[in-house]
Amino acid sequence: IQRTHLSHNMAKEVASYTDVANQIIKLVLSGSAQKRSYERLSNFTDAIGNRVSGSHNLELAIAYMYNAMSQDGLDVHLEPVKVPHWVRGEEGAEMVLPRPKTLAMLGLGSSVGTPPEGIEAEVVVVSSFEDLKSRGANVSGRIVVFNQPFVSYGETVAYRAFGASEAAKLGAVAALIRSVTPVSINSPHTGVQDYQEGVRRIPAACITVEDAQLMARMAARGQRVVVRLNMGAKTLPDADSFNTVAEIRGWQHPEQVVVLSGHLDSWDVGQGAMDDGGGAIISWEALSVIKDLGLRPRRTLRAVLWTAEEQGGVGAQQYYQRHKANISNFDLVMESDLGTFAPVALQFTGSPAAQKVMQEVVQLLAPLNTTRLEPHGEGTDIGPWMQAGVPGASLHVEDDRYFWFHHSEGDTMSVQSPGAMDRCSALWAVVAYVVADLQDMLPR
Amino acid sequence: IQRTHLSHNMAKEVASYTDVANQIIKLVLSGSAQKRSYERLSNFTDAIGNRVSGSHNLELAIAYMYNAMSQDGLDVHLEPVKVPHWVRGEEGAEMVLPRPKTLAMLGLGSSVGTPPEGIEAEVVVVSSFEDLKSRGANVSGRIVVFNQPFVSYGETVAYRAFGASEAAKLGAVAALIRSVTPVSINSPHTGVQDYQEGVRRIPAACITVEDAQLMARMAARGQRVVVRLNMGAKTLPDADSFNTVAEIRGWQHPEQVVVLSGHLDSWDVGQGAMDDGGGAIISWEALSVIKDLGLRPRRTLRAVLWTAEEQGGVGAQQYYQRHKANISNFDLVMESDLGTFAPVALQFTGSPAAQKVMQEVVQLLAPLNTTRLEPHGEGTDIGPWMQAGVPGASLHVEDDRYFWFHHSEGDTMSVQSPGAMDRCSALWAVVAYVVADLQDMLPR
Repeated sequence: IQRTHLSHNMAKEVASYTDVANQIIKLVLSGSAQKRSYERLSNFTDAIGNRVSGSHNLELAIAYMYNAMSQDGLDVHLEPVKVPHWVRGEEGAEMVLPRPKTLAMLGLGSSVGTPPEGIEAEVVVVSSFEDLKSRGANVSGRIVVFNQPFVSYGETVAYRAFGASEAAKLGAVAALIRSVTPVSINSPHTGVQDYQEGVRRIPAACITVEDAQLMARMAARGQRVVVRLNMGAKTLPDADSFNTVAEIRGWQHPEQVVVLSGHLDSWDVGQGAMDDGGGAIISWEALSVIKDLGLRPRRTLRAVLWTAEEQGGVGAQQYYQRHKANISNFDLVMESDLGTFAPVALQFTGSPAAQKVMQEVVQLLAPLNTTRLEPHGEGTDIGPWMQAGVPGASLHVEDDRYFWFHHSEGDTMSVQSPGAMDRCSALWAVVAYVVADLQDMLPR
Repeated sequence: IQRTHLSHNMAKEVASYTDVANQIIKLVLSGSAQKRSYERLSNFTDAIGNRVSGSHNLELAIAYMYNAMSQDGLDVHLEPVKVPHWVRGEEGAEMVLPRPKTLAMLGLGSSVGTPPEGIEAEVVVVSSFEDLKSRGANVSGRIVVFNQPFVSYGETVAYRAFGASEAAKLGAVAALIRSVTPVSINSPHTGVQDYQEGVRRIPAACITVEDAQLMARMAARGQRVVVRLNMGAKTLPDADSFNTVAEIRGWQHPEQVVVLSGHLDSWDVGQGAMDDGGGAIISWEALSVIKDLGLRPRRTLRAVLWTAEEQGGVGAQQYYQRHKANISNFDLVMESDLGTFAPVALQFTGSPAAQKVMQEVVQLLAPLNTTRLEPHGEGTDIGPWMQAGVPGASLHVEDDRYFWFHHSEGDTMSVQSPGAMDRCSALWAVVAYVVADLQDMLPR
């Protein structure tokens, strides 16, 4: 594919990529790359399983992807990162009164453990932070059960993140937080939590929606509810890890880059297929597809598979520190970390002038029926760049069921489909290739 | 409420119950009985928890309901039943090769256990009984993993019921069956299974959809999959239990009965709220509502809370044997065992003449928007009576999600709603009262 003349009219220039976009889409939807991203993801997650920050499995995962992308003919290297090393240890919870019942639970990342003999205490059930404060002196010495309703992940996750410290301020000895999900089959969900400086650190875990509601009903009847909690969680010294980087070097401006990314680490439950194996794999797959078609854009396409996202975008932050001196050469940063189900839109953050370009670029996705550009892309890992003014794009998919499985044993290949992943990969490849090949970088 | 003249025209006679039906519905939907069935069910399941056949919890459950219905002013008695006493014991499964992974599992009711040291064997994954047979000699000495797709509960449950014996016929040492559910968050579902006479009894358990699919992918790649299974399951001598019976005696024909029923036992996971605490509670609630309104029908209303349904309708079968000599006095047998979510219809099995009557009766449910009569009611527990020609009715509800939670840890109060249960109770009360009060029994 030779492109000798580019119109200086931006819309015309972008429209001139219609044929190449169609070739990419065809290769992925019905050509030799069909179902490949699903197969790559299942080969990877089936072989490795989950891979939490600091674990041996994460090392295996990085080595796996380094080898797989190298064998695919891409230019691969690793960039060192120091990552948190929290380990869950043995854990369990049971309701002791008013009747014995095992409580399905998952300790939260960064939580301290209990003493070896566990913590047994009466429970106080609250429905919100305001409700907690209104209990005042009744919280001291108790285990706080947060039974907050699910509103949205973005809003409700505050209880998982801050519940322990808010409870500790009132003297609580542990916090059990209702899992942040709209649907449960008695399924606990983990995630990271943040201790507030200067507040006593108490053990924190998520329990199921069902058990939080059970204890809320019991407490509302005036029944005394007592829970025993055992958590062997501890935080070890930071571990060595890597961001995994694969490139197709640009022919004209190799120093200028379009970053495609997802994170390789996961929680230590489930298989990390959806969060975020899918995002990592389509970032690789997009480069494969472009390579398979013999394409090489003006600028460098760089797939970055972040490490330790779940601990707060740790790999991405160190990447930013390492590369920020070069920020003027970052054309676009892309992140897929909201699932690789059927794509519905591209989320984009950038100047009005950049928005105009991207509005034209997404028209090339008409065969995928995803020509919608949404404002305000999200992304833990591309956040530092976006905050510094680099245009950012995120993949928006049909995510109705995303939080059913998120950070739980249900995050497996069973929630993924080959057809949906193909559509994500094709979208990702078209957007990245075209932006990397336009005569000019996106305007800031 | 005095009813002095009844038209001999059946439709007119039924229509004359419009006022009383409206009173029942009003009492339940917005009167003093509002939310009562939900509260009764949550009080009951929160206090007792699950209650499998033969367990101490089932004894507690029967005593609880005997006391609660007696205190409610109903005429209550217990009828003895001998029930199976299968106990799960300690159990667990893990994939050993190609990589170690815990497999969430639940042993199946009536299954034998493994030897104390467990069973470790290579796996053969099959997608159907036909596929199993085609493996022939490759099954001997292996653990069979059934990875059948979910079609419908009625069709797909055959794998749970018969998988072990079919696998044993080919020399398998254990059977792991994909849980029978359309949706999973890595959730295993239990249930009863049937050994075939003359076939070696091998341990049988359900694993999750996710793990069955995982091992299927691995096997399809030619990977050797090895699983270790430990099950402490055993069958003890039959235990003593009871059907719990509460009545409002008929004023004119006390020997003639309309039976309303649900089962009190559950599986030994979850809380048995949906299966079938709800059905038992609305059968009680219907009698309460009729009593609260000062109504007393011509015939006896009899709520029967069956025991040991999950082991194959054991309590109901012994009830039938005990009472079948009196079959001509059984006017209608009703069963709710498909959930107490929002009602959509009444399922009815009976002669064309009886259908005509019931078509009129369901018109009284117009305020509930459930005037649909569907043919061919189901029901394990009323089956013996229906097969002998007694008209039978079952409650059909919005059951899209029923099998997500069925026989799993997810069968809890969290799936129930007070409003939906009120509508079920009102429907149940209207149908039972009117049929029990009509001048004539339903024609056979």
